[in-house]
Order: sequence, then C-alpha cells, then structure tokens
Amino acid sequence: MKALVYQGPGRKALEERPKPRVEAPDDAVVRIVKTTICGTDLHILKGDVPSCAPGRVLGHEGVGIVEEVGPAVAMFRPGDRVLISCITACGRCAYCRRGMFSHCETGGWMLGNTIDGTQAEYVRTPHADSSLHPIPEGADEEALVMLSDILPTGFECGVLNGKVKPGSTVAIVGAGPIGLAALLTAQFYSPARIVVIDLDDNRLEVARRFGATDAVNSRDGGAAQKVLEMTGGVGVDTAIEAVGAPATFTLCEDIVAPGGVLANVGVHGVKVDLHIERLWAHNVTITTALVDTTSTPMLLKTVEAKKLEPAKLVTHRFGLDDILEAYDTFGRAAETRALKVVISP
Amino acid sequence: MKALVYQGPGRKALEERPKPRVEAPDDAVVRIVKTTICGTDLHILKGDVPSCAPGRVLGHEGVGIVEEVGPAVAMFRPGDRVLISCITACGRCAYCRRGMFSHCETGGWMLGNTIDGTQAEYVRTPHADSSLHPIPEGADEEALVMLSDILPTGFECGVLNGKVKPGSTVAIVGAGPIGLAALLTAQFYSPARIVVIDLDDNRLEVARRFGATDAVNSRDGGAAQKVLEMTGGVGVDTAIEAVGAPATFTLCEDIVAPGGVLANVGVHGVKVDLHIERLWAHNVTITTALVDTTSTPMLLKTVEAKKLEPAKLVTHRFGLDDILEAYDTFGRAAETRALKVVISP
Amino acid sequence: MKALVYQGPGRKALEERPKPRVEAPDDAVVRIVKTTICGTDLHILKGDVPSCAPGRVLGHEGVGIVEEVGPAVAMFRPGDRVLISCITACGRCAYCRRGMFSHCETGGWMLGNTIDGTQAEYVRTPHADSSLHPIPEGADEEALVMLSDILPTGFECGVLNGKVKPGSTVAIVGAGPIGLAALLTAQFYSPARIVVIDLDDNRLEVARRFGATDAVNSRDGGAAQKVLEMTGGVGVDTAIEAVGAPATFTLCEDIVAPGGVLANVGVHGVKVDLHIERLWAHNVTITTALVDTTSTPMLLKTVEAKKLEPAKLVTHRFGLDDILEAYDTFGRAAETRALKVVISP
Amino acid sequence: MKALVYQGPGRKALEERPKPRVEAPDDAVVRIVKTTICGTDLHILKGDVPSCAPGRVLGHEGVGIVEEVGPAVAMFRPGDRVLISCITACGRCAYCRRGMFSHCETGGWMLGNTIDGTQAEYVRTPHADSSLHPIPEGADEEALVMLSDILPTGFECGVLNGKVKPGSTVAIVGAGPIGLAALLTAQFYSPARIVVIDLDDNRLEVARRFGATDAVNSRDGGAAQKVLEMTGGVGVDTAIEAVGAPATFTLCEDIVAPGGVLANVGVHGVKVDLHIERLWAHNVTITTALVDTTSTPMLLKTVEAKKLEPAKLVTHRFGLDDILEAYDTFGRAAETRALKVVISP
Repeated sequence: MKALVYQGPGRKALEERPKPRVEAPDDAVVRIVKTTICGTDLHILKGDVPSCAPGRVLGHEGVGIVEEVGPAVAMFRPGDRVLISCITACGRCAYCRRGMFSHCETGGWMLGNTIDGTQAEYVRTPHADSSLHPIPEGADEEALVMLSDILPTGFECGVLNGKVKPGSTVAIVGAGPIGLAALLTAQFYSPARIVVIDLDDNRLEVARRFGATDAVNSRDGGAAQKVLEMTGGVGVDTAIEAVGAPATFTLCEDIVAPGGVLANVGVHGVKVDLHIERLWAHNVTITTALVDTTSTPMLLKTVEAKKLEPAKLVTHRFGLDDILEAYDTFGRAAETRALKVVISP
Repeated sequence: MKALVYQGPGRKALEERPKPRVEAPDDAVVRIVKTTICGTDLHILKGDVPSCAPGRVLGHEGVGIVEEVGPAVAMFRPGDRVLISCITACGRCAYCRRGMFSHCETGGWMLGNTIDGTQAEYVRTPHADSSLHPIPEGADEEALVMLSDILPTGFECGVLNGKVKPGSTVAIVGAGPIGLAALLTAQFYSPARIVVIDLDDNRLEVARRFGATDAVNSRDGGAAQKVLEMTGGVGVDTAIEAVGAPATFTLCEDIVAPGGVLANVGVHGVKVDLHIERLWAHNVTITTALVDTTSTPMLLKTVEAKKLEPAKLVTHRFGLDDILEAYDTFGRAAETRALKVVISP
Repeated sequence: MKALVYQGPGRKALEERPKPRVEAPDDAVVRIVKTTICGTDLHILKGDVPSCAPGRVLGHEGVGIVEEVGPAVAMFRPGDRVLISCITACGRCAYCRRGMFSHCETGGWMLGNTIDGTQAEYVRTPHADSSLHPIPEGADEEALVMLSDILPTGFECGVLNGKVKPGSTVAIVGAGPIGLAALLTAQFYSPARIVVIDLDDNRLEVARRFGATDAVNSRDGGAAQKVLEMTGGVGVDTAIEAVGAPATFTLCEDIVAPGGVLANVGVHGVKVDLHIERLWAHNVTITTALVDTTSTPMLLKTVEAKKLEPAKLVTHRFGLDDILEAYDTFGRAAETRALKVVISP
Repeated sequence: MKALVYQGPGRKALEERPKPRVEAPDDAVVRIVKTTICGTDLHILKGDVPSCAPGRVLGHEGVGIVEEVGPAVAMFRPGDRVLISCITACGRCAYCRRGMFSHCETGGWMLGNTIDGTQAEYVRTPHADSSLHPIPEGADEEALVMLSDILPTGFECGVLNGKVKPGSTVAIVGAGPIGLAALLTAQFYSPARIVVIDLDDNRLEVARRFGATDAVNSRDGGAAQKVLEMTGGVGVDTAIEAVGAPATFTLCEDIVAPGGVLANVGVHGVKVDLHIERLWAHNVTITTALVDTTSTPMLLKTVEAKKLEPAKLVTHRFGLDDILEAYDTFGRAAETRALKVVISP
C-alpha cells in the first residue's frame, strides 16, 4: 500500500509499504477513506517529537472502513464505517477508568507517533473497541475527520477545561485549526463574548465568520490592553491558549479575570514565566491537557443534530498521491489560507 | 485603647489609639478577646505589602464581643460573641454573589491592611453581617481564632482547590501554620497518604503528630525523588504549595501526577518558571487563591463536632501588653518552635 | 396609587392604596414601569396559596425606577432603572450564603404573597441590594420583565437542575410560559433534541418556533410511547415537568432514561406516585426547586448578547387601568393564545 | 464442583456442578477463596427476582484466584488474586464510558442472576479485565469480600449520591449491612452528625460502635420528630434510604432538609408516595442507583491505608459445605445478630 513516511528531520516520502495486519486480539485494520494533516505532523517533521522514529507512517486522524478485526473486538465488524480517534485507549487501565485516555498505560497518542499512522491506505488500530467510533450511514466523512483530533482537542482542552458558560466572556489566542475548533465548540455554551486573537488577518476574518464576536490582531503588542478595555478592565472568564509559545501564554496570563480559567491547548517547547507574584491572589485556574477524546461520542451527536458543522474547517482536498502537495499547502497556511486539508486515498 | 501599630518597614509599636466607632450603617465595633499574628503581618513589617500604610493597626484575625452595631446590621447585637473573618465581604456585589468574597468590590482583605485591624482592644468591622460569625456559648475562643484566616486558607486554597479525595495521595510543601492547617483539613476527606515536606525537623515532627503519613526533609534536594519513589514514580494527586517561593513551586511541579492538581497557597514575591514544555501533556490543574472564607460556617461545625481541633496549632500565649514579645517569639519560630501565638487584650 | 388587590378566593379589584414608603434601612421603593401576571397569581385567586391573605396587592414581577432607598442600601440610588426579582434575599443568612435565596430566612417569595406586590404603581422591595438588579440604559423593559421570574425559573429549576448538555436529549412536559422559558434557556447548552409535550396545538406550534426539535400532543395518551420511540427505547437525558400534576409527573418518570434527570418545575397540589419499584435501579435523579434567581445577572448578560430573546414571550399589552381585562386574557390562554401579558402603569 | 443452586421460590441446595470454563475471549475463571451472602440472595429465594431462573448458582460477591483466562484478557494471569465485582462491565459501551457500569449493555448485574455466581468452588467472570480487581499480597481476603458489593453500594448509592460533606448532617435509615456500609464510608467526608435509624436495638448498638453519633429506634413512629428536633427543626442534609420500603422512604422525605438529598439505596418492590405537594419548593434532590462499582479501586486504597475497616462487618464464618447453615444464620439476623457471613470453599 502507499503511505506517507517520516524519514528523519525535514524528510518525508510517499512509499510503498506492506498492508498492516491484525497483531493483537483487540486490533482492527481499517481502510482509510479520508485522512488529514495536523500541526503536530509538522512538528514531527521538524524533529521536535523524539518519540516518533524515522520510518514511521505519519497521521493520527481519519475515517475509514473496517477491513479486519481481531478475535477480542466486540463492537466492530468488517465493513463498518468508523471514525479513528487520535488517542488509543484500552478502556480498562486506571487512567482509562478515570476517563484519562490520553494517559492510557498501553495506549495514548500512538498513531503516527509510536506506531504507523493513518496517512496511508490502511492502518492498524490497537484497542479497537475503545479507539474507534461507529459513524452513521451517509455521514459527511470529510467533516467527521475533524473529530479525530482537532474538535475534541479544542473542546476538551479549551472549552471544557476553560469552563465556558452561558453569558461568560472567552478569549481564544490563536486562530489556527485548533483555536477555531475551540471557537466552534465554545458556542455550545452560549458565552456572551468570544474574542479571537491572532497575527493573521485572514484567520481573524474566518474567526468572525465562525462566530467570534470580536477579533484582535496582536501584531502591535496591544492585544492585552484591548481585551481589558473590552471587559471593563476585568479580563475574560476563560482564556484559551491555542498557540504554544511563551508570548501567547503570557498574553493569557494578562487577560484572565480574577476567578477565571487559563486553559492551555498549545503544545509548548520551552518553559514559560508564571507571574504568580501577581496571580497568587487572583483565584485563577490554569489547566493543561493532552486530549482524551472522551467527548467524541457527544461531538458526533452534535454534528448529527447540526449544532456543529466541522466541514467549515476543510479548505483543500487532495488524493493520497498528492499528499506532498497537501503538506506544502498546509505548511504555507498564511499564503494558501489553508485550515484543514483532506486527503482521500 | 492600646493597639499594635505598623510604623513603616521594620518598625512597630504598641500605641494608645482612640477606640473605633461605627462609621457606616453596616459596621460593627468588636471588643477583641483573642487575636493572633500571621505570617502576613511579618511581610508587612518587611515592607512587602504596599497597600498597608504606616500608622495602620495590624492584625486580621480575632474573636471578640460585639460592642456596637450600625443601623443596617441585622444579624448581630451588642454582647454577641463573634469570630472575625480576615476577609470583609459585602455579600451583594458580583464577586460576593459568586462566593469570591476575597475580591469583594468594597471589601476583601481590609483589616490590618487598608483599615485598622485586630491587634488592639477594639476593631471596627465593615459589612458586619457578612464578615462576622456567631460563635457558640462556651466555645474555646483561643481555638476559634485559628478560623479567622489560617484554617479557611489551608482548607479552601489547598484542600478544596486541590480536590483532595478519599484514597488519594497528597503532598504539602511547607509545614508552617498554613501548611499544617491544610494538613488538618485534608483529613476531612480521608486521603490514603499525606506527605509533608519542610526544611525544619521540628515542624516535620509536628506534621506527623497532626496526621501526616510521611515527612520528608527537603534540605538535601532529594524531596522530589523521594515523593516519586513513594508513589511508584507517578507523583501525587494533590500538591499543595504552602511556602511561596520559586523552589517550592518547582518542587510541586515535579511531583504532581498526570491528572493531578497543584494548589498554590503561598504568597509569592517573584515569578516562577512553569515547565509547560513538560506539563502541557500532563493534564494538570494549577490553582491560585486568596481565601474567600466562605467555608468558615462549615469549619465551625466541624470544630463543634470535634472533627477538627484547631487548638493544636496554639503554642504560645501573651497579653496585649506583651505583643512585641509575641512578635519576637513568632518571628523566631525555628528556635521557639512557635506555630500560632495567641494574644489576649 | 392604583393597585390590583386580592380580596379572597375568586375576588380581585383595582383599588386606590397609599403609596408605599421605606420601612427598613435596606428597603427601596420602586415605581413600576412594566409588570406582568404569573400562573401563580391565578393559583392565589383560586385560594390555593394560604400564605397570601386577602387585602394583598398581587404581583411578583416587574421593571421599574428606584424612587427612594433606605440608608443601608448601597447599590442603588433614586432614578436607577431596576429589574425586580420575584425572590427577596438578604444575602447573608445561611441559605443565602449557599445561593438558596428561595429559602432566605427573612426573604424568599414575599412580593404579592406575604407583602404587597408589583401590580401597582409602586412597590416596596425589602433587602433591595440583593433583590434588585440594575438594567442597562435603553434595554427593552418589556422583555426584561420576563427575567423577574419565568426565565430564571425555567433555567434554574428545569435546565440547570436537569443538567442539559451539548448533544443530550431533553423533554419538556408543558408548553406554558414556564415550559417555554425552559425551552429557550435549554438551548444555551446545545442539546441535540428538545421534545416539547402539551395538550394545546397552538402552544406546540409556538414551541417549534422557539426551537423545539419535536412537538408531541399528549391528548391521546401515547406521549411516553412516542418519546421512547424517538430515543431508541432509551428515554431522554432530561425530563422537565413544567405543569404540576400527577399525570405529567408520571409521564416524566416514564420517559427519563437510565442515568437521566427528572427536573420538577411545576407547582403541585397533591402527592404523586413515585415508581421506585422500577426506578430504584435506573440511576435517576429527581430534583425539586423554588427558583433562587441567582442566575439573573447571567441571564441579563445573555439578553444583552442576544443569546436570549425574552420579548418572544410577550403576546399582549395592557395599561394598569385595564388589568382586569389582562387577567381575563391571561386566564383564558387556550382561547386568547396568551403567553405573557405585560401591564404598564 | 460444589455450588449453591437456586431451585425456584423457597428452594435451594448444595449441588455438584461442572467446573465452569472460559467461553468468550475476555472471560476468566476464578477459584473462589471467600464468598458471602447478600440480602438480594434472600430476595431471589423469595421469588422476587424474575431475571434469576431456577437452576442458577447464586452469589455475586467473592475473592479468589484466577484459574484460567481467555485470549483477550490483558490485565490478569492465572494465579493472580482478585476481587470479583458484583457488576460485570465491558468497559466500552456507551454506559460504561459514562461510568454507568450498572447498565453495561452486555454486563450489569449478571453473577448469581443471569449467569452462575460465586457461591461455588469456581466462577466464570465475563469481561474480566473490567470486572475483576487485583488485590495486594497478604490482604485480608475476608475483609475484601465486603468490597464486591456492599461497600461500593453504600458508598456510591448512599454517600456519593447523597453528597455527604464535612460538617454536614446525615441520617441513614436502616442499619443492615448496606446501611452500615454507608455509615462506614460516610465518615470519609467527616460529617458533623450521622444519625442511624432502625427497629433493632442490637443493630443500633453496632451503628454506634461503627461511628454513628446518634441512634434512633423507629419502633414508636417518632423517628422523624426526633431527627427534626436534633437538627433545630430543619432536617438533615443527606437522608439515605437503606431498607427499600414505603414507610422508610416516607421517613426520608420527612427528614430531608431544604436543599438536601434523599439518596435511595434500598431495593423496592412497590411504588411509594412522593409528597411533591410539599417538596416541590424544598429544593431537594432524590437519587436512585444500582451500584456501578466504579469506586472499587478507590475503596481498595482506603482499606490499604486503614481508613476503612471492612472486616468489622463480618460476624460469622462457614465452610461451603455448611452454606445452608450460613443462609439460615444470615436469614435470622435479628436473632443471630449476623451482619455478613463469610463462606470459604
């Protein structure tokens, strides 16, 4: 089969690989119908993710059709259409029992990281019963690929951790796909105001179309001041960091109101300054999270009920043969205005 | 009346002052029966608290007898025995309605800070209905002084924010009065293990007597390693920072388990490093808090039910005339083994 | 002044009454700009509410302008435009501290019940600081009258108690003003499906317009069966009883899913059968509630943000001189299609 | 092997049965070391549980040693010592994902009900990975049998649902094994007062020894009055029904305070009267629950930490050959003073 393979920092290629097979009793093999590229894949290609060794098939998002299941798989049969979760969960270890699938003792983020991933014609998915989701007949499969990772990530790590509430004020720092996923799902809770902050005017324009009540370009360094002015000097109830950089984390510290939550979603490579000499008395909560994807069944319901329209996030489409071009388009998002690019093997 | 007055950095004196009077309709004047000294008073004396101007009567803890009430005071009458909360709350602003008394728009930490405090024969308490608590006949008033500040602080900022649960593991970094208050109240929830960490062997010995299952002297820099070993390499469900220094905050970051809470109680003067390059994927929660004292009525019930014995924290007793000696004893705690010193005007 | 006075079961009249005055230090007197009639007023007129004695000015909803305040009122000044809460709260008793304003030791439901109410030119409001809400300049006062009682009631007793969630299924039994208030505010949380059940096709049509995904006329006794069919035989996550009768309560018992909530909002005059021989193993929660109105500030924000449009509920308008006609119109709602009737003194 | 078999209403016998074998890939077969008899077993013998057909081996509690595992079992190996949960859970259906193991689509209460149970030398346990718990070397196995059912039941259905809190007041109606399990685990949360109510003075005496602050014999019909007097006329924050009869449910309705919780634990055979004509405005919560046993890992930790001493509940011991005598002893508890009887095959 064809597969996009990481060949070490800066190098990737579409290679011919053997089709994966069931290895453990609770494995499934899924034929990929749609997959996509994540910002994390770009991090791997930069060499930032040491757990991902050269030779690895990339990709942790996808929708497909079950091809083969191991004898312990009870929930799926060949021919079933499924959504593949970016997180593999055994469903029975102490972490899984607490709903912390991200830290599953024999799972977690495996696909396209410690085992071969979804940017291929087929993928082997361990712990299939707890790591795949049935999808309804006739569902928009392109849209559902957004539920493999970015929508549960924006929702769980940003919106749920951020305790977004009816009437509350929310700031989302970073209007990339994850920030926009937080924006879309924050609206489940009817906050009064959602301010989106970014450096890219195009993405801010997208944010407005997707429901932001305010958009602030932070290029001039005045974003914190503007958000404080908007909120009567108090700050926001929820500040969602969706970038992963010291400056944006600090911005969130500057704009979170007393009693508010700073929900970190961004992947950080270096430490940040925590201004606890000021925040110690502000009664704030700071959360960090790798997504658990426990919300996926609920998100599927909201899609079916048309409370959530993930298709909005798809800007480009490619065949698997053109995946290198897809990477290029996705990697130059400021120019191409790409949000999510969907790849069909 | 006699009162202990802050005279600027490094200077304090027992002065003669006019007895306070009701100024606003919801004021009360309380005759002090017992008061005490807080670590925060020492911070003021170092000049660390700019909101507290020279000339201020210090003290924000106390038990007394109501002397006079304004016309709008409905819950108290002269002669009532009361516990004075360190936090003044109007009970009706937006923050108070959310239970965030610490940020009351016309209250918060006022006593011994922005208005005259309790280390005196009398004190004026604004918003008396929401800032005083009736105490039962025959209660141990010395013990109840511990409920003005340190017990609600340890409980709310450490134990409640830290989500201490039956069967969980807790580390408390710092075995001063606040850390010990967290230790006493953490036991309300029957955690399986409470590790207390400090530099002072005497305080660690006290911690053991007060219910710590483990005590670790962090002098040798190996505390994080020891706590990780105790917990099978995983870390603790709750790490309570009760010191207020970069090194102890970092220690808490090092020992909090995935999915755990770092509850900051300490008062910090400088920023700390947040190792989010490691913690971003650990699903941790960090909380900061100035005490709201909303738990005080509940704490009073636990004292009455003998589930909490605050008297344990009192090591020394002085008359108001000897308050300078009381400060000296409290300030040299490592030598005097003082925890809380009670002063009787 | 003119006032609508309850004269005993079945009797009411528009009488001339002395203008109320400040009696307690925390009282305000408010000039009524808009008021309305509640289903509870009809209960009083039937003689069902013994706490309301003949001679009482009725009404517990209204928007007005502060005329006079007592010396202890800190939040309001004459001339301020205010929303009057149906619940009077001291803000400092043990119940108020827990947010249970409905059970305030010196408040609760007083207006138009144990003291004179709002269907008059002026009303005296005790505990004004905690029982009035400032309203923004230029607000739609007619719309805001809906926030005195029915919107917080539908929201707190139905939606919040019912734990409505994104993607969940909700049934609301009863499409009167309270049921519709629950319908409007349930949408804050983006449930996948809201089924409204009533006997009146007109009200069901209104419910559809207001956002119900399904409407079921229960006339034929088949409502439970239909709801079970809609939900794959499982039942609804939240069943909101907004009628107050044994049959509708039983219907809610029949349709609540395992793990679901039955949130009672209706005012009941007789006991109901609880089929615990079936429900004991269904892991359900049943809640009852008199509204606390603690959500009113939040609801005001959602109105300002246009997430909630209370004006939809107003179907008829009258002057105070025509209040008897307003009662008649409201009382014959099946014929007049009245939801809420607004009265302007 | 020997097994205690239900032979239809009123009839049971110790029979010789074939040793069970692994049937599904995620089955285990466990050799029973200790088992016990539950009140529910007596219900079955009365013919009250139609799901349990004649010919069934009874028993849903036990500790044992894994004898054989299916190929999909990942957490256990032959020779492992395990606690058997009374609830079988697949860990992957929609209910299990919500932690509602009691309603597992292919599990729930199966053992000794719809499949053969634990009152035998061996038992087959489906979904072994999610339905067994490893137990530490050297643990008191007799004590741990109490964690198969009664301790999680008292804790989850009574204490957790009842929201027992530090300083709160709790009433437990019924001092049988389940009521006593609620009593033991309520103390995890340091309530100020726990009133236990029963008809049997011996059990009330046991309750006092186990930590009840008050014991009330309800024989004279004055229990509600006494509890109201104890609580200043207000009632209790948590009322736990641990009997399963209309009179005791009504007693709980009579004593639950405004804002309180009535947590039903008892198994009911007939409907009860819900006095909603009084309770509608009391802001109470009523919960029902079949145990999920999701708290079992936590309870194991509290036993290990000596915060919970389940051995207290064991009053009698028998060999499997004497199980009919064990049933007799357990069935005549009022005379024999039996709480839990442990049976060793």
